[in-house]
Amino acid sequence: MDVLKKLGNNIRKYRNNLNISQENLAFESGLHRTYIGSIERGEKNVSFKNLYKIASALKTTVSELTNGIK
Amino acid sequence: MDVLKKLGNNIRKYRNNLNISQENLAFESGLHRTYIGSIERGEKNVSFKNLYKIASALKTTVSELTNGIK
Repeated sequence: MDVLKKLGNNIRKYRNNLNISQENLAFESGLHRTYIGSIERGEKNVSFKNLYKIASALKTTVSELTNGIK
Repeated sequence: MDVLKKLGNNIRKYRNNLNISQENLAFESGLHRTYIGSIERGEKNVSFKNLYKIASALKTTVSELTNGIK
């Protein structure tokens, strides 16, 4: 599977575990909701800074969020 | 410290541990040498795909490479 797709799946899993919506994650990370959606679908090549914002909003780290992607 | 600076330091550490030059890492990852240099200095907001290429060229994972960044 494509690495962006794997990353998107991980982000969605963490978000679902926290039981928050894409809107909530967008608000907490300071990013746009449609942008979050496209990242979760593996359609956007997210930058490290934005990935860091998403990880922080999900109360985790980039390292944990990318665990298992190889 | 800035997260891009931390990431750059981690990349440099892994590269030095493998005892390879920025030129070697650039070749192995398919990226430009000056781009690798600017990432190591924390000057570029690297994308996830390029970070994945760098991690693979360093025989590690994005998760390992970003370990400790929080």
